[in-house]
Amino acid sequence: ADILVLPGDGIGPEVTAAAVTVLRTIAERRGHEFTFTERLIGGAAIDATGEPLPADTLAAAKKADAVLLGAVGGPKWSDPQAKVRPEQGLLAIRKALGLFANLRPVQPHPVAFSASPIKPHLLQGVDLIVVRELTGGIYFGEKTRTADSASDLCTYSVGEIERVIRHACHLAMTRSRRVTSVDKANVLETSRLWREVASRIVRDEFPEIELENQLVDSMAMHLLARPREYDVIVTENMFGDILTDEASMLAGSLGLLPSASLGEGRVGLYEPIHGSAPDIAGKGIANPYAAILSVALLLRHSLGLDDEANCIEQAVASALAAGNLTADLAGGTSAIGTQAATRAVIDHFP
Amino acid sequence: ADILVLPGDGIGPEVTAAAVTVLRTIAERRGHEFTFTERLIGGAAIDATGEPLPADTLAAAKKADAVLLGAVGGPKWSDPQAKVRPEQGLLAIRKALGLFANLRPVQPHPVAFSASPIKPHLLQGVDLIVVRELTGGIYFGEKTRTADSASDLCTYSVGEIERVIRHACHLAMTRSRRVTSVDKANVLETSRLWREVASRIVRDEFPEIELENQLVDSMAMHLLARPREYDVIVTENMFGDILTDEASMLAGSLGLLPSASLGEGRVGLYEPIHGSAPDIAGKGIANPYAAILSVALLLRHSLGLDDEANCIEQAVASALAAGNLTADLAGGTSAIGTQAATRAVIDHFP
Ligand SMILES: CC(C)[C@H](C(=O)O)[C@@H](O)C(=O)O
Ligand SMILES: CC(C)[C@H](C(=O)O)[C@@H](O)C(=O)O
Repeated sequence: ADILVLPGDGIGPEVTAAAVTVLRTIAERRGHEFTFTERLIGGAAIDATGEPLPADTLAAAKKADAVLLGAVGGPKWSDPQAKVRPEQGLLAIRKALGLFANLRPVQPHPVAFSASPIKPHLLQGVDLIVVRELTGGIYFGEKTRTADSASDLCTYSVGEIERVIRHACHLAMTRSRRVTSVDKANVLETSRLWREVASRIVRDEFPEIELENQLVDSMAMHLLARPREYDVIVTENMFGDILTDEASMLAGSLGLLPSASLGEGRVGLYEPIHGSAPDIAGKGIANPYAAILSVALLLRHSLGLDDEANCIEQAVASALAAGNLTADLAGGTSAIGTQAATRAVIDHFP
Repeated sequence: ADILVLPGDGIGPEVTAAAVTVLRTIAERRGHEFTFTERLIGGAAIDATGEPLPADTLAAAKKADAVLLGAVGGPKWSDPQAKVRPEQGLLAIRKALGLFANLRPVQPHPVAFSASPIKPHLLQGVDLIVVRELTGGIYFGEKTRTADSASDLCTYSVGEIERVIRHACHLAMTRSRRVTSVDKANVLETSRLWREVASRIVRDEFPEIELENQLVDSMAMHLLARPREYDVIVTENMFGDILTDEASMLAGSLGLLPSASLGEGRVGLYEPIHGSAPDIAGKGIANPYAAILSVALLLRHSLGLDDEANCIEQAVASALAAGNLTADLAGGTSAIGTQAATRAVIDHFP
């Protein structure tokens, strides 16, 4: 399989290197052949080419079986007046590859309970996954700017809503068959359409599924008050952005959370949900677990290698349980660096 | 002073009755003259008149010194196909009275630490206030609907941003002189304008204030991970809606959180941030503390009666500390009802 690696900015290169090490090890042990190609994206791409998503990066992504991405952005490229921003590279590649379904699983690991602001008894048994619509909504609507005002248009078509709801429903059929759809239907027209379509798809195509509709503001509470009650949560782009970062606090650290961005096509994009963390870049202390768990999703969703995916997830769980904690998880006590954490995962392969 | 009471739907009538009882008691004890007028809003108004904000309700609000509102909405009026919805009454009165600044203070009370999903050591000393822009953004932009798509427009003018940032800054000058402005400037044009205006207003008009800009997704995390670090948080309408419901979890229950909606004019609107809770309506068990704390804000912001406002806030704190807990706060142990909680507040007037 051909895997395109887009290290990006900040800690991106460090965590993708760790994840590639794990992939190479799995390939050797299980007799797979993975080839790795590297390309530029984000701030690194702006510096080299002036563009956050160079044409040859996109071309390589379209040919690959899967894309592994680190993170983009940093203060160097954050001037509000700047014409090009690293984030545009990320938004553009999601859109160009048609990756409309962004899966963000949250399964708090007991060893991270102490790093979470949430009370441990609420975290026990939490196992939820947010399906965030990723190529529509206010992120991609028309933007205007005049001397004294600005606007962003939020649009959703029936087709855009249908496909992501279906994706969430297919996922739910492999889990508990419960779907929570989140919107703001008491205020937004796009949310009323969202709710109608979600209800229709479930009724007509997935009658076994129990659908609950939640308002986004209530959801921001329930996610904290009773996280165990949720299984598959599906929502639009902006709400998904906010709710998944909030949900990451259940897991104790952003550094543990992987994501998969999928479309109708074969190629998927896999990235930790954390950012480029410029403050700790280059120090060898970044938590690689989220990137490593992202390659587990890559093996499962793009390469169909379920066993290998499970193997990595178990190895990360065991490494954590054995106390291999990076600085974001360790609290006051002694923390290990990126390489030691990566080795711990490999040492714990079942 | 003339106070307009809009009980609304669900538990609205119960909690506003409690709050009015407290106001009457304060008036007697301190020799003030308050007159109370009642009008319809929300579902109750739709049932009686067909409209969620009847003209005579709005006229009464414009003549009043302050408006006390309960809550609007309920399953009875939630048909997605409905042409009129209770929430429209709330949105319309906010807009018609020009109430652009919605203040939502969060000061977790120790007695509610156990009801909060957040770890107690993080809650100690939290004292923040969210200033939510309330009459602009995607709530009030043009909406469209066709057979196969829908849209909502998010617009902000420079003037709309300036006035709410100034409001937050004036408030911050009476507190710790720190303001956190929340946006999504890496994606939205309205957010880039928001950030520019916030930076300019602080630089030119409030040089003593320390301004921090945060992305909304990061803020959804930081609010949980280090709530003590925040003081005045200012943000646009939709982000404020989500973040304040999230922040309510710091206080253990929505039932403790008041709000004040203010504009350039004199009249302000005061409401608990909880909803109409139709499931417990009419049972006499609704938590009245949020409504009672809302009248403290009313006394302070619309009537200039700081002493009286402090008196109510202290009385609520003492009543809570003495163990007068409604069902939302009591956990398994015995809970008191709306009237007993109201009496407890009055008994604890300093
Ligand atoms: C970097 C930013 C554009 C991006 C988003 O908002 O989608 C990030 O926050 C994410 O969640 O992947
Ligand atoms: C009822 C609804 C329209 C309202 C809002 O979103 O503003 C409510 O959630 C609030 O926060 O006051």
